[in-house]
Amino acid sequence: MSESKIDNRLWSSKARNLSPYVPGEQPQHDDLCKLNTNENPFPPSPKVGEAIIKVLAQQADDLRLYPAPESEELRGALATLYDLDINQVFVGNGSDEVLALVFASFFLKERPILAPDISYSFYPVYANTFGIELVQIPLEADFSISPDAYRRPCSGIIIANPNAPTGLLLSLADIRKLAGEHSNSVIVIDEAYIDFAQLEESSPDVEVSAVNLINEFDNLLVTQTFSKSRSLAGLRVGMAFGNASLIEALTRMKNSFNSYPLDKLAQAGATASVLDVEYFEKTRQQVIDLRTSLTVELTALGYDVLPSHANFVFARPHDGAASQVAEVLREQGIIVRHFDKPRINEYLRITIGTAAQNERLIDALKALQTVADVEAN
Amino acid sequence: MSESKIDNRLWSSKARNLSPYVPGEQPQHDDLCKLNTNENPFPPSPKVGEAIIKVLAQQADDLRLYPAPESEELRGALATLYDLDINQVFVGNGSDEVLALVFASFFLKERPILAPDISYSFYPVYANTFGIELVQIPLEADFSISPDAYRRPCSGIIIANPNAPTGLLLSLADIRKLAGEHSNSVIVIDEAYIDFAQLEESSPDVEVSAVNLINEFDNLLVTQTFSKSRSLAGLRVGMAFGNASLIEALTRMKNSFNSYPLDKLAQAGATASVLDVEYFEKTRQQVIDLRTSLTVELTALGYDVLPSHANFVFARPHDGAASQVAEVLREQGIIVRHFDKPRINEYLRITIGTAAQNERLIDALKALQTVADVEAN
Repeated sequence: MSESKIDNRLWSSKARNLSPYVPGEQPQHDDLCKLNTNENPFPPSPKVGEAIIKVLAQQADDLRLYPAPESEELRGALATLYDLDINQVFVGNGSDEVLALVFASFFLKERPILAPDISYSFYPVYANTFGIELVQIPLEADFSISPDAYRRPCSGIIIANPNAPTGLLLSLADIRKLAGEHSNSVIVIDEAYIDFAQLEESSPDVEVSAVNLINEFDNLLVTQTFSKSRSLAGLRVGMAFGNASLIEALTRMKNSFNSYPLDKLAQAGATASVLDVEYFEKTRQQVIDLRTSLTVELTALGYDVLPSHANFVFARPHDGAASQVAEVLREQGIIVRHFDKPRINEYLRITIGTAAQNERLIDALKALQTVADVEAN
Repeated sequence: MSESKIDNRLWSSKARNLSPYVPGEQPQHDDLCKLNTNENPFPPSPKVGEAIIKVLAQQADDLRLYPAPESEELRGALATLYDLDINQVFVGNGSDEVLALVFASFFLKERPILAPDISYSFYPVYANTFGIELVQIPLEADFSISPDAYRRPCSGIIIANPNAPTGLLLSLADIRKLAGEHSNSVIVIDEAYIDFAQLEESSPDVEVSAVNLINEFDNLLVTQTFSKSRSLAGLRVGMAFGNASLIEALTRMKNSFNSYPLDKLAQAGATASVLDVEYFEKTRQQVIDLRTSLTVELTALGYDVLPSHANFVFARPHDGAASQVAEVLREQGIIVRHFDKPRINEYLRITIGTAAQNERLIDALKALQTVADVEAN
């Protein structure tokens, strides 16, 4: 609805002052090469569909009953996966809902919260929704995050790690520093993309997830999602890990908004995904490998590609004409994400696709460059 | 977690002051006769499972993609069903989520909101969550709602119709009166149970739903759910109908909390349910018929049964010993709902079960009465 037509006479002032999140577009098109919303190029584990069909088949009328409000089976599976207690695990309707509950539970205080100036664009939306002051801390010149820049009074800090859209990874040492220096604030590490992080190819066991620190810091909360590494964006499941008292606050907040956010099929499908460790490990490694080859090819085409730990790359064409490149790609049905924002408007965020999708992208970029070369001569 | 153990040092004051909703218990037990949470005794339309399996089978990897954030297909089906425009329809993760967004969008104002003192117990929870003053208007002596009692300044009114746990129905004439007399307030009619309402057996076409009034009043919002008449409590889908500007506010509020509340399977299943009109009409009539026979049998046992328009009855044993009756039934695996609250603590809310479940309940009550008679002699 266009602004001019809106009759907001009956709206609350909160409703009038919202600045809603705008999701990446979801065009419906057959020959589309959709590299704009960081979905996984691979399907979810086949066990997911099997588990859902089993719910439908074995307990034919099961959907008539309310789901388990606290999703104990799913939380139990996640607790086992990460060697945690079930009361250190919270689940919700996508990590977006989990984050909304986080803002209401821990950030709604007198002092501002801190977040990187370039990060997930839903953070300022939540802050605005709940009337929380958000102070944006500029990324360093190389787009990295320095814990020292966060040394100021705050009620909390939220950092996406790996960060989006840069793909850069903050080390556990730095997260330890942040959590230790702000023991009276809740530090939220949003690990939507953490499963694609790999410090060194030779040592894949180096720890990258802050879940490993939650027994060390009672003020550390880690959020994750099934939408990226588990190929389940369509199922809407997200989670948070932290000290039992933080999880208790989230549970109470949930039960003050909506008691049953996860339907029966989502609970069953997500649980099956967690249990299929082999498929998960295989596909996330495939995405990491495809990222490596895409990075090599983009670099060969003269792109400046940031070292990504996510399922996307953040890349700058040599002339910085990112917006134009996005436009030309779109004409060919290849959708990538361009942010018309200071400091990053010369970059494109490109989701890692299948080998075929990546090839189609590279071919299009090569053709584009040939045209440019011809025009230049 | 017990209160004494909670370390709420890092919680926001909002989190500290919550009084979360307590859902009716969902005991897991094989031989249970579960008549406590108003689930439908019949399974959902078989088309629901078929539609979900089709999503899983035909587009095997479809779950890796985000769902349609505005659920256009489902909203379109609902718009067609009720002869509305699609921009008069909103959907969410169960009507509980829809109601939370309603409170934030329309009730978060200076003046209090009004609701019946005996009604859905989530209303005071939402009011507390959002810091809204809720003034409870006492039901009349016969548990009915009188629009005249609501003639006072307010930012909004919310009424469940049929009301829960009474099952009593407010007429469209009364709703018209409320909406007309409060043209600067949003009047929310929560029609979770409306599909079970029937004014007279001889004239099933008499209109009972306030959806019929939304083109008449721009301040009238009607909420409904798939959890009751559509046997889909396990799928978490609710909706709201109203003037396009009210729907726009809800959409913005949604997109400031969580953009994708309905997963792909829920959207597909709910759409299939809406399209299967025949199954819906058949099962809701069966529930109405079972309610009639249960009412007759309870009355014969000396129970005072309010005239119900919902899929439950609100019934008082002749001696008012509702709590003791619930206790004895529970020992036999029959769970009904008792509210330990002034005015209604002598009543039981009993969900309409299958014919077999209702028979098991009546047999248990008869046996109970026989014991009482023997003891009395």
